[in-house]
Amino acid sequence: MTHYMKAKIAVAAFIILTTLALPTQAQDAASQNKAYTGAQASDKTYKVIYQLDSGSPDVINKAIRNIGNLLNDPRLSGKLKVELVAFSGGTEAFRKGSEYEQGIKGLLERGVRIVQCLNTLKERKIEKSELYDFLAYTPSGNGELVIRAEEGWTIIKP
Amino acid sequence: MTHYMKAKIAVAAFIILTTLALPTQAQDAASQNKAYTGAQASDKTYKVIYQLDSGSPDVINKAIRNIGNLLNDPRLSGKLKVELVAFSGGTEAFRKGSEYEQGIKGLLERGVRIVQCLNTLKERKIEKSELYDFLAYTPSGNGELVIRAEEGWTIIKP
Amino acid sequence: MTHYMKAKIAVAAFIILTTLALPTQAQDAASQNKAYTGAQASDKTYKVIYQLDSGSPDVINKAIRNIGNLLNDPRLSGKLKVELVAFSGGTEAFRKGSEYEQGIKGLLERGVRIVQCLNTLKERKIEKSELYDFLAYTPSGNGELVIRAEEGWTIIKP
Repeated sequence: MTHYMKAKIAVAAFIILTTLALPTQAQDAASQNKAYTGAQASDKTYKVIYQLDSGSPDVINKAIRNIGNLLNDPRLSGKLKVELVAFSGGTEAFRKGSEYEQGIKGLLERGVRIVQCLNTLKERKIEKSELYDFLAYTPSGNGELVIRAEEGWTIIKP
Repeated sequence: MTHYMKAKIAVAAFIILTTLALPTQAQDAASQNKAYTGAQASDKTYKVIYQLDSGSPDVINKAIRNIGNLLNDPRLSGKLKVELVAFSGGTEAFRKGSEYEQGIKGLLERGVRIVQCLNTLKERKIEKSELYDFLAYTPSGNGELVIRAEEGWTIIKP
Repeated sequence: MTHYMKAKIAVAAFIILTTLALPTQAQDAASQNKAYTGAQASDKTYKVIYQLDSGSPDVINKAIRNIGNLLNDPRLSGKLKVELVAFSGGTEAFRKGSEYEQGIKGLLERGVRIVQCLNTLKERKIEKSELYDFLAYTPSGNGELVIRAEEGWTIIKP
């Protein structure tokens, strides 16, 4: 909070100083931009579905980190419902013994629903026994995204 | 259906067994997750716009496969309206004689609207005659996404 | 306008000709597709948040170009509110002296809000002094996307 107050005083000082200096239009744009401190969460619930469709370690690690950061965002504390759906290459994140196991289990324990596309298993000839035992399955990852979006969920693709 | 029933019995058995074993919180999370079988489609119509903005063969093939899987999802049968808009590198998917021609024509015949961004043609000096004759054109791919989203369409980026 | 009329006449001629030729179902799909000229913007305001989470020069340049094209789309003239939020590798677009400085400042001057995720600064040990002075900051980029989407903004990931 103290940190926020300091930030607000700094922003106010910045606005006063730039105003005194008779700002050009560009300075106006800059000072208006600088004064913004992020959107405010006024709703009760925020539902988010993460799309994981790449087997790239960068993307999988980003997805795990992104969801963690979302769950830690003070604006959304206690307001989130999160689902992670993997399909295509993203299924690599759900392999037993993979480097992602701890990260994915950490999300599960924080209440994130962890869902795998059944189409991908058919296309890539992957057995359920190769994947974590706790997974949920959905007929298609794309169908899951579309139905969730229609229900008001936000899709994020890391 | 028999497959679904078996799955449901298996899930029920799993829940009973884990309950008898006095589950820890982690086991609770796992069994609750496992019981989920995908979102249910209760609406009449689902409108989806696919964003194809990469020339990577992996991404283009994934897009074609994704849309096919969506159209085959039993939950959404007869309820879908789908548009595919290409811009930036994604325009490669629409070149006459490309390896994607059959896949894209297959989508067209299944009722998918196939749309190309006009800005990209200008930026990359591509003539319409280099692209499939059946294409629709929109002033900008990004504008198309934004207007469709405001109309209630879901954006998916493969 | 004359250009549009010509296009419409061409489309009408195309439809008449293909009709006279007793079209197969495939020709029907083609002519219906070809007749589409892009979605129409009937709303007053369109709010769009761009997600920039990659340090790849291709992606950063695409994002800058995408937003420019959106702002130039005649259908959306005077109706747009745009925010660009960077996190993860996307923060590279906001480094003082980077090759992107002119492009990002151009967007700022056209009214685009330019926002950086604070989590990324912590994770990557980046100081605010390394980034443009005019930036706005948000607690988390993912939280920003989710709150904006809930407020009715469209997310686009270039």
